[in-house]
Amino acid sequence: MKFEVTILGSSSATPIYNRNPTAQALNINERLYLIDCGEGTQQQMLKFDVKASRIDHIFISHLHGDHYLGLVGLLSSLHLNGRSKPLKLFGPAPLKEIIDLQFKYSDTTLNYEIEFYPTDPTQPAVILDTNEITVETIPLDHRIACTGFFFKQKKTLRKLIKEKVEALAIPVNYFSLLKRGQNYVAPDGTVYQNDELTIDSSVPKSYAYCSDTLYNQNYFAQIANADLLYHESTFLHNMLDRALQTHHTTAWQAADVALQTGAHQLLIGHFSARYKTLNELLDEARSVFPNTELAIEGKTFTVGA
Amino acid sequence: MKFEVTILGSSSATPIYNRNPTAQALNINERLYLIDCGEGTQQQMLKFDVKASRIDHIFISHLHGDHYLGLVGLLSSLHLNGRSKPLKLFGPAPLKEIIDLQFKYSDTTLNYEIEFYPTDPTQPAVILDTNEITVETIPLDHRIACTGFFFKQKKTLRKLIKEKVEALAIPVNYFSLLKRGQNYVAPDGTVYQNDELTIDSSVPKSYAYCSDTLYNQNYFAQIANADLLYHESTFLHNMLDRALQTHHTTAWQAADVALQTGAHQLLIGHFSARYKTLNELLDEARSVFPNTELAIEGKTFTVGA
Repeated sequence: MKFEVTILGSSSATPIYNRNPTAQALNINERLYLIDCGEGTQQQMLKFDVKASRIDHIFISHLHGDHYLGLVGLLSSLHLNGRSKPLKLFGPAPLKEIIDLQFKYSDTTLNYEIEFYPTDPTQPAVILDTNEITVETIPLDHRIACTGFFFKQKKTLRKLIKEKVEALAIPVNYFSLLKRGQNYVAPDGTVYQNDELTIDSSVPKSYAYCSDTLYNQNYFAQIANADLLYHESTFLHNMLDRALQTHHTTAWQAADVALQTGAHQLLIGHFSARYKTLNELLDEARSVFPNTELAIEGKTFTVGA
Repeated sequence: MKFEVTILGSSSATPIYNRNPTAQALNINERLYLIDCGEGTQQQMLKFDVKASRIDHIFISHLHGDHYLGLVGLLSSLHLNGRSKPLKLFGPAPLKEIIDLQFKYSDTTLNYEIEFYPTDPTQPAVILDTNEITVETIPLDHRIACTGFFFKQKKTLRKLIKEKVEALAIPVNYFSLLKRGQNYVAPDGTVYQNDELTIDSSVPKSYAYCSDTLYNQNYFAQIANADLLYHESTFLHNMLDRALQTHHTTAWQAADVALQTGAHQLLIGHFSARYKTLNELLDEARSVFPNTELAIEGKTFTVGA
């Protein structure tokens, strides 16, 4: 089952050096989820061929402009491009007021419904639970209310071993039970163990998105063993004072989060405009956690690769 | 005296084909003025080397998102990049409420002052009058309150003809009067006509910006004889019905505005996303008004060239 993240923006507060403010598109089994939506996100989606019309869920971490200023433009474009199906939007409560005010003064009535789900920044909560995934908020420690998002795949059904099932002439109405792990009792009373007849088709993967935050152990337990951890890494560790002051994280700290929480792979992003090139940030993180990559524009990462 | 306009965005409602929503930077004698500020304008300024820090005046025509959704990001970046000098902002009254709400929830207190001047969409008004220019609002006919902006250079002082002034040993304290057109009376009573001693150094130029609007003769008299007219041209004339319905203008109509109002040169822009290429729009406008150019991203036009 596909589980990929495409980076649309890697910049912190101000866009520079062709780095755009934060946005990421998740593709989970051909469903698209958008996380954060900095200014220019819809242009980035055009550039990297992420089909905006296919997004049904948008998650906004917090109300600093570099994480949501592209949202009203995107919502408006979806409307103008004929969207009719509802869109689910998760974010801080005042986001609704901000959107409503702008559509009020542009005299816009959307052709589709926005189902808005305000997030609670004080405690983790499952905010979406589908057949395929759950999404939990991760309370982060930033200057204003901010949550990360933890995407977890559910275990999929087991797959039938076609030859075995056919050889035993198992009736079709048993298939659903077999896929769920039941054994098969033949008409002659013989019991066939489930693992003779099916295989476990996948191991569910998880993606933890943590931006923006102070390095803070409060969220470590929740994100334990993520297959892929995205963690903001605004500064080099020689700027720790600045990171503490602005409630951000250094590359060294982001890597330490990955190490402490048992992540399989780390992506770092949300780079300060002071860094024209990113090698030093990557090197610093890799010195602590080698399996680290830069979350830069246009790159797609497979969760659990 | 320099008087140039650089196009930062040429797209109507939705960005597409590398066309960005509307924004233009005017350079008048090395002072920068920004007109409209669609999403991604700050990224476009970086791309085309328009120094945002040098902008002291921003003009917003109306509150459709493709004309202002880049503003809060730009204001925020100016703040983060250390701006301290005030910024003058002209636009529809609710714009202030929209900005204030977003800075409230991002807990941002700007380091510089925004002096906000609400525009009146019902009648023309001079909204800025400096030593060098005046700016008038142009009431337009759109679905929501919308004004264009008419930038007019003032006549500059006459230039002294150095050899004549030196030959007559005219005292320095006369220079200012001569530059303003006075004659010179020598100590022996001889009267020297001003035009023997000075030359008219420049002819003041004008730039009319008209976006978005229905073709409507109400604004024709006001923009008469513009050296450069920018007029929206959202559709080809075979889409006239759609133009009427959405309060926009066709390429044929934009050219007719230029013709009727005696413009020297026409720029057309604000192109619908339905046009992948723009040749047909240009050809249609030129069939009526030959001195027409496409207002496309990164192009700079000299007013009165």
